[in-house]
Amino acid sequence: MTVKNAFYAQSGGVTAVINASACGVIETARQHSDKIGTVYAGQNGIIGALLENLIDTSKVSDADVAALRHTPSGAFGSCRYKMKSLEKNKREYDRLIEVFKAHNIGYFFYNGGGDSADTCLKVSQLADSMGFPIQAIHVPKTVDNDLPVTDNCPGFGSVAKYIAVSTREASYDVASMCATSTKIFVLEVMGRHAGWIAAAGGLATDANNDIPVVILFPEVEFNQEKFLATVDAKVKQYGYCSIVVSEGCHYPDGTFLAEQGTRDSFGHAQLGGAAPVVANMIKDALGYKFHWAVADYLQRAARHLASKSDVEQAYALGKAAVELALEGKNSVMPAVIRDSNNPYTWHIGSGELKDIANVEKMMPMEYISEDGYGITDACREYLQPLIEGEDYPPYENGMPKYVTLKHELLDKKLPAFEL
Amino acid sequence: MTVKNAFYAQSGGVTAVINASACGVIETARQHSDKIGTVYAGQNGIIGALLENLIDTSKVSDADVAALRHTPSGAFGSCRYKMKSLEKNKREYDRLIEVFKAHNIGYFFYNGGGDSADTCLKVSQLADSMGFPIQAIHVPKTVDNDLPVTDNCPGFGSVAKYIAVSTREASYDVASMCATSTKIFVLEVMGRHAGWIAAAGGLATDANNDIPVVILFPEVEFNQEKFLATVDAKVKQYGYCSIVVSEGCHYPDGTFLAEQGTRDSFGHAQLGGAAPVVANMIKDALGYKFHWAVADYLQRAARHLASKSDVEQAYALGKAAVELALEGKNSVMPAVIRDSNNPYTWHIGSGELKDIANVEKMMPMEYISEDGYGITDACREYLQPLIEGEDYPPYENGMPKYVTLKHELLDKKLPAFEL
Repeated sequence: MTVKNAFYAQSGGVTAVINASACGVIETARQHSDKIGTVYAGQNGIIGALLENLIDTSKVSDADVAALRHTPSGAFGSCRYKMKSLEKNKREYDRLIEVFKAHNIGYFFYNGGGDSADTCLKVSQLADSMGFPIQAIHVPKTVDNDLPVTDNCPGFGSVAKYIAVSTREASYDVASMCATSTKIFVLEVMGRHAGWIAAAGGLATDANNDIPVVILFPEVEFNQEKFLATVDAKVKQYGYCSIVVSEGCHYPDGTFLAEQGTRDSFGHAQLGGAAPVVANMIKDALGYKFHWAVADYLQRAARHLASKSDVEQAYALGKAAVELALEGKNSVMPAVIRDSNNPYTWHIGSGELKDIANVEKMMPMEYISEDGYGITDACREYLQPLIEGEDYPPYENGMPKYVTLKHELLDKKLPAFEL
Repeated sequence: MTVKNAFYAQSGGVTAVINASACGVIETARQHSDKIGTVYAGQNGIIGALLENLIDTSKVSDADVAALRHTPSGAFGSCRYKMKSLEKNKREYDRLIEVFKAHNIGYFFYNGGGDSADTCLKVSQLADSMGFPIQAIHVPKTVDNDLPVTDNCPGFGSVAKYIAVSTREASYDVASMCATSTKIFVLEVMGRHAGWIAAAGGLATDANNDIPVVILFPEVEFNQEKFLATVDAKVKQYGYCSIVVSEGCHYPDGTFLAEQGTRDSFGHAQLGGAAPVVANMIKDALGYKFHWAVADYLQRAARHLASKSDVEQAYALGKAAVELALEGKNSVMPAVIRDSNNPYTWHIGSGELKDIANVEKMMPMEYISEDGYGITDACREYLQPLIEGEDYPPYENGMPKYVTLKHELLDKKLPAFEL
């Protein structure tokens, strides 16, 4: 039996640690060169497979592969491109098989979130549906933390740490100024459907940091009157108030607090601008001076403040994906299984893609405090381990030293393909 | 001669390192208890002196004083409160003298920016103008980096590092996504009158990081047509473009790209929202998908990413202020004097407040590249040393461990005073 090569691709929004998973995949595959040939990475995700733009990772030095572990973003390029179902677009699946055949690819590692798990599931079924032998393994990744089965999703822990730290730091700032100046600070965070990231703002407070944080979750319909009363009470008690607002926060009728009116390629509304809306609402009603920030990409790119726990799990899941392939598995996803909260212990297990694709794990309502504006102890117990530990990148001249890979593409063997 | 006590206050917008200066003042004064009695800190800045709200720092443990070095914000509270001239408001100066007399205060350490240097100058003249013996020393601090005499202003280096790192990280992110999704990232930064902070975005690029960054400085009148052409060229060359826009960026007629329409207590326009304006302008004209972020307080509070050089200088300037007082100096400010760029060497000198108060150091035009959208090598040589080195705070449970001081106030000896 000839040794098959592997295809690896990054999909959807990138994170501070998706390259750590890539590092885990490539380093582990290199340790098993008797069973897995070369890892070919799709340039710009699955599009790289369709266009036969395959990056030859055997040309990447061990040092550069190792540096992926501390480099944010998607080193091979990612994409937002959802493959339709086999019935609706057989042409694309035929093309995948052509490319896989041409380059002797027998393993498919797809590193992404919910939409990508669905694509991975479809590829895993090529053996049955189109008679092409392939093992497809999904490597979880999403700052949205909404994949089922796994305890959490790589990328989320580092965003959570960034939001928790930023909320604490900005709150210290406002606390210093509030006697004569700014009394309100609003931070807008990602999370279109689930409040996982917003919840992390609640970690700014603890036994030694009594900080008034009001969180606006997508899970809780926005009630302006109640919100303003809550903020006013915090300002009267503490002198100031910090607000963490999810981009997905919305009115009872479903209208988001702010929409930019544009939509991404999946038809999702592109959000942004809830923070100034909330800040001005407070100013108008209560007269308090405000400042607001929108973290946007900074939160998911902030490798300088990555959670050590997150980096370790991202790497471990990449490694486990290759090990599952070596065990002959198909249509599965390695997952983090939590054994205990304190101390936080975990191991790597796995789940079936059929139970994962298109299933969105929502934040449990028992993680949101009764008034709807904070997190419960149960939520804190879940979140805290995910931000545990620091994993600083190396620095040079005062700046983090990230790696940029030269994309050395394989020679094409097939005719061009139109997307 | 009885040993005189000292008054210390934090003024204006706080920073990631102003508490490091406080640490330098208090630790150094403690080493000279034969000459300086207790350091009394104004609660919420100069207002604390006027209201006789004096924090007794002798009640603060050595460990907590040491922790100020790694704690962002103003631990004693700051304020935006500009004292009028002696002629216009003799009442306030009379009150200061009353409070200083009542608590045997002979040293005045004022930690702030340009407005504060002016107040400090006025206090330094109390000996001549009102016959009250006092030595007033200004401790420089401002993220705006606009004080003269000193090489740079504590607080700026850490903001510069934050903006440089954030711009690099977000640019890596966009570079990964640009094939099918976001092509434009806009980061709005502080800097009402001077482009020092915006310039730091230029440090995101270097010999190993070829990143297309377009900077919009307050020093360069905004030219929409030229800007759009520049961005479009970058996208065509690189596939994406990062834009760093100063909140002070404005049209030729002086109109800011975005005003919130509110003004602070000094009558300065409160800005914010230039980023979405720029992003939408690009979308409308060029059709590129965008993301935008507004760093706001996150940039000046980000002690987790402080520049080591900045922390060391902030501490050294606090220490030097006390040493200048011990030398009998009045109406001066310790300053960083740069000896060489590479390696960066510096020593502490000093300047006269009369040469500092109300003098705004603008960014030299030779720091801005010919096209108006980048920084020159001279600018890079100036900026790079200021972001050099990391100075991480201690962490506990995944979060930075900052100190919150209990404000133990002195018993009041005087009748109340109305501001």
